[in-house]
Amino acid sequence: MNSADLGLPVAVPSTALFTDHYELTMLQAALRAGTAGRRSVFEVFARRLPEGRRYGVVAGTGRVLDAVENFRFEPEMLDFLRERRVVDEPTLEWLAGYRFRGDISGYREGDVYFPGSPVLRVEGSFAEAVLLETVILSILNHDSAVAAAASRMSVAAGSRPLLEMGARRAHELAAVAASRAAYAGGFSATSELAAGFRYGIPTAGTSAHAFTLLHDSERDAFTAQVESLGRGTTLLVDTYDVAEAVRLAVEIAGPELGAVRIDSGDLLLVAHRVRAQLDALGARDTKIVVTSDLDEYAIASLAAAPVDSYGVGTRLVTGSGHPTASMVYKLVARAESADPAAPLVPVAKKSLGGKTSIGGRKWAARRYDAEGTAEAEVVGTGPVPPEYEDGLLQVELVRAGEVLAREPLDTVRDRHLAVRARLPLSAMQLSGGEPVLPTEYV
Amino acid sequence: MNSADLGLPVAVPSTALFTDHYELTMLQAALRAGTAGRRSVFEVFARRLPEGRRYGVVAGTGRVLDAVENFRFEPEMLDFLRERRVVDEPTLEWLAGYRFRGDISGYREGDVYFPGSPVLRVEGSFAEAVLLETVILSILNHDSAVAAAASRMSVAAGSRPLLEMGARRAHELAAVAASRAAYAGGFSATSELAAGFRYGIPTAGTSAHAFTLLHDSERDAFTAQVESLGRGTTLLVDTYDVAEAVRLAVEIAGPELGAVRIDSGDLLLVAHRVRAQLDALGARDTKIVVTSDLDEYAIASLAAAPVDSYGVGTRLVTGSGHPTASMVYKLVARAESADPAAPLVPVAKKSLGGKTSIGGRKWAARRYDAEGTAEAEVVGTGPVPPEYEDGLLQVELVRAGEVLAREPLDTVRDRHLAVRARLPLSAMQLSGGEPVLPTEYV
Repeated sequence: MNSADLGLPVAVPSTALFTDHYELTMLQAALRAGTAGRRSVFEVFARRLPEGRRYGVVAGTGRVLDAVENFRFEPEMLDFLRERRVVDEPTLEWLAGYRFRGDISGYREGDVYFPGSPVLRVEGSFAEAVLLETVILSILNHDSAVAAAASRMSVAAGSRPLLEMGARRAHELAAVAASRAAYAGGFSATSELAAGFRYGIPTAGTSAHAFTLLHDSERDAFTAQVESLGRGTTLLVDTYDVAEAVRLAVEIAGPELGAVRIDSGDLLLVAHRVRAQLDALGARDTKIVVTSDLDEYAIASLAAAPVDSYGVGTRLVTGSGHPTASMVYKLVARAESADPAAPLVPVAKKSLGGKTSIGGRKWAARRYDAEGTAEAEVVGTGPVPPEYEDGLLQVELVRAGEVLAREPLDTVRDRHLAVRARLPLSAMQLSGGEPVLPTEYV
Repeated sequence: MNSADLGLPVAVPSTALFTDHYELTMLQAALRAGTAGRRSVFEVFARRLPEGRRYGVVAGTGRVLDAVENFRFEPEMLDFLRERRVVDEPTLEWLAGYRFRGDISGYREGDVYFPGSPVLRVEGSFAEAVLLETVILSILNHDSAVAAAASRMSVAAGSRPLLEMGARRAHELAAVAASRAAYAGGFSATSELAAGFRYGIPTAGTSAHAFTLLHDSERDAFTAQVESLGRGTTLLVDTYDVAEAVRLAVEIAGPELGAVRIDSGDLLLVAHRVRAQLDALGARDTKIVVTSDLDEYAIASLAAAPVDSYGVGTRLVTGSGHPTASMVYKLVARAESADPAAPLVPVAKKSLGGKTSIGGRKWAARRYDAEGTAEAEVVGTGPVPPEYEDGLLQVELVRAGEVLAREPLDTVRDRHLAVRARLPLSAMQLSGGEPVLPTEYV
């Protein structure tokens, strides 16, 4: 990926209405009660990982920064809120001047997380921080769910490249974010052009059955494709008879044929047969791409098959069974005024049915054993013990409303692979189990 | 919902890059081979319903029409495709002039569908129709998945209103589409302001635990809320002790208190206790709103509880276990030229592992028994039998590139409820089973 591709001129519309009705009515009530300015600390965390998952993947942080910068109430939005009588005039006036001027810190994007990890912290007045709840959670819950699935698939795929091709199975804009999260989680490319345009992710593709069916014969279709796209193209060989198609493909493109794609049938069996046939035809360098409802388990089951790359759609963009992370945005501490010197008081809802939170502004660190393998996620509310001072997991992202840290997606992806490599080996097991690191509260 | 809210001035950016890489490379090859102009018919259908579901719900059609209208390749998009060498110059020139000028017909939005139902048909040149595959599927697969879950939840809720509040669990723009689909499927309102702004859906909200925790006491919080939002507001009563909170709520707001919300614990048990307490305090008209990981089964289990409305989040926006419909976009017929007189030839991929299609341009009708209850989905490729001529399920949506039919979301919702009421009673069972109508091919 070319980092010069970052920051293409795509208009990002205001994100201010990606907000729940009650955030504005709470704001109105707090403005009137004189409590809206109280200095407050909100934290984002997940109470648990999805059933059986060993680790979570923080993704979407970069998009959160864009969303916070673009959180402005435009005149037509204020008109809408006025017409619908969502809030009163003093609140509308306050919203008209809204810009987030507080601080945000959090885990680096691409890092892993565990139950209770404080992955993002938003500090400011109650008023300015409470409004960001919905949009921040939307982004982190979606992107982290996809990145976690992508990471497991990339573990299963080993060194073989993974192509994300799930756009047609997800909301059209969620798909773009899913491509980004998949890349962060270890994928190599996406089928979707918007993801290439917006985030610089490499795009790739093969051919569809419709292309073969459009032509009078498979021979005509393959000839048309090779003449236009070159011998390095990927021909789809399962529209009619696979063996005949492979024979025809090599006849037309020669042994320089880039790849063939198999999209149906018993992929393990068919891949072996196709590999043998390609080799017999002298097309030893022609690669085999497989697609068709793959997930991490199907990919793992093909580890010993002569497959060169995988295309993954549905199961990736739907988080492989867990389409949303269960992160929440909770007030964990607040002062009695806006005064920066006023002490922060930890707050937490009392438990009813397991929805507990731990009050207080938290730091987090990861403890490693002598071999450099992670052994615990350490979360605390008091002073940071000296041994963790240099290894805190949270970094400053926004200071007084200014975004401090932006980074290329390749940096995020590299970080994820490096962090994952330091987890205990059991993190690489696809089978269900407990989180691979315990969360220790200090 | 006020239909004047439809068509608010929201800029819809170009949808042309919600397209897979291979659609453009297929286009390039077909342009060069002289086959790009062949008159083609693509159909959208699902081979099956999600496991155990009795019916599907067509949703997103209105958004598809917007997407087709806004499918234009802007100069910066063409520059991107050129720099990335996705396609050659003749193809870029062709794309620069792209506008869909073909025809689209399909099931009315809000109608139900079954395996094989041809829910959308796109006719035009291969070139113009193949490009729309990804964006059309993205929209229909996402929106139909959410609408199907919403419909089941609205069956379970009976006459009690359902509030959609899942924005924080879905991608920020997918959430807006999910609110729209939920409304189409029978929900009454959404928590998300963007959905009110964009689609005119009623918005509503209560209060969060953060609001209570911000204040020095629950008394301060309730007083602040009632003073600002009036006695008709909904107070959240499970931050500390529910019984004490209910007592305090009625003390502060009086028996005119609008509602209380319970967001944790055993909702059935707590709702009974709270109702008894409210009645004892004279607050007989104060309603009870329940939230907390509800799905259609949890809603059904509360049917006998004294609950007045439900708020549903995660399980709704993730399609209650099926976050995407499995609709596909398949070439089913094509001519040998662009000539409107050239006969259409049915085409279909041969089966390998169940991915069969049935070739040919299809009509669809629903057969009813003497009582007016639907008994079969009838799909055919030949001439329409006289008994179905007046009851075809497909309507014209786009003719020669012009959108013919737009309708208010209330019309879609009313249609869905009316169509659903004519299905066999077993459609209302939440338990898993076969599609409630068989698909008959004529």
